[in-house]
Amino acid sequence: MNTIRFFFDPISPYVYLASHRLPQIAKETNCSLEFVPVLFAGILNTLGQKGPAEIPSKREYIFRDALLCAEQMNIPFQGPPTHPYNPLAALRTCVACENVESRNRLATHLIQSCWLHGKELSSLEILKELANNIGLDGKDLIEKSQTQEVKNTLKENTEQAIELGAFGVPTFAYENELFWGNDRLDLMKDFILGKVKPVDEQLNRFLERPSSANRIK
Amino acid sequence: MNTIRFFFDPISPYVYLASHRLPQIAKETNCSLEFVPVLFAGILNTLGQKGPAEIPSKREYIFRDALLCAEQMNIPFQGPPTHPYNPLAALRTCVACENVESRNRLATHLIQSCWLHGKELSSLEILKELANNIGLDGKDLIEKSQTQEVKNTLKENTEQAIELGAFGVPTFAYENELFWGNDRLDLMKDFILGKVKPVDEQLNRFLERPSSANRIK
Repeated sequence: MNTIRFFFDPISPYVYLASHRLPQIAKETNCSLEFVPVLFAGILNTLGQKGPAEIPSKREYIFRDALLCAEQMNIPFQGPPTHPYNPLAALRTCVACENVESRNRLATHLIQSCWLHGKELSSLEILKELANNIGLDGKDLIEKSQTQEVKNTLKENTEQAIELGAFGVPTFAYENELFWGNDRLDLMKDFILGKVKPVDEQLNRFLERPSSANRIK
Repeated sequence: MNTIRFFFDPISPYVYLASHRLPQIAKETNCSLEFVPVLFAGILNTLGQKGPAEIPSKREYIFRDALLCAEQMNIPFQGPPTHPYNPLAALRTCVACENVESRNRLATHLIQSCWLHGKELSSLEILKELANNIGLDGKDLIEKSQTQEVKNTLKENTEQAIELGAFGVPTFAYENELFWGNDRLDLMKDFILGKVKPVDEQLNRFLERPSSANRIK
């Protein structure tokens, strides 16, 4: 059984939208699913890129678009009480989970509590409660989340995502093939099922071509 | 009859993909179509943002994704002989067209000649020939394209797109509602047909909420 890795940060509304569809996509492609917490801001820092929320017109567009997509997908959407918020505590609490199954469950619960029920994920008290809600030991997870080991693992996850070629979230990795964005779930499904064939050869031919211009000022 | 404005720069493979579907979308929504040439690099300069081709992992991802999307849409894809190339001459030649109908035809022909047949759009000689191919006066258009008036209009188009809230290409504007990316054509269609309702109220409630964190370093 192959695995779909879901590089996520609950800061992104598209991570929320993807969390609704991904389990079904995994089922239809006979893949297992692994939520991998990464810090989106860490990816942006490494690439020297502004985030969507840091360009006013893009921020407004992104939330309008996410609301319209949610409506089109018939998914309720409330959004968190503050945004951007600091997602580090939530990401680290997910990292602190001992196995993939509980990490997937906790990540899904946190993402949906934030975007569906308006919970503030930067609060340790709320994170503890949310973990308890789904039968995990919230107090223990919050304690573990503050260890250097967990902090390092989150950094390593983020570096691994960048090394694979990720530049945003949500990013899905099937084997080493990346798919970026909730709107690429169907493409990934078609790819896994063999309905869309790999394009490596055409891609390499394309990437070998020279450029004939730099950025026009 | 309402109009869909298509803010385009032939530098983008997604502009090519959109050029295949847009006429049908316009027909199905009973809208007229207006191709508006804009300089993508000008948008990026104003926003202080890197383009997809300026981040190596994103460049590779984008071309892989565009090839996979083309395959999924059953659209042939060859790509230009050099990339990035300087699209200014092509954009200005489109601006030089006297009416919307000929501008739309020329823009479509240039975009498709580039991405489908591998034509180099930075060459004035090739641009002239391509305009002649579709019954326009290539020599006259190339001459006009080098006037200050045409240069200014391209700048104004680009500024207008930014003012409307565009941050990339392809961007489609239906009235003042923006849709970004080939992958939002179906959403725009549903929106125009009333199947997806405006979200202004929810959006405003969302945008009024405070932020509780800046970029984490």
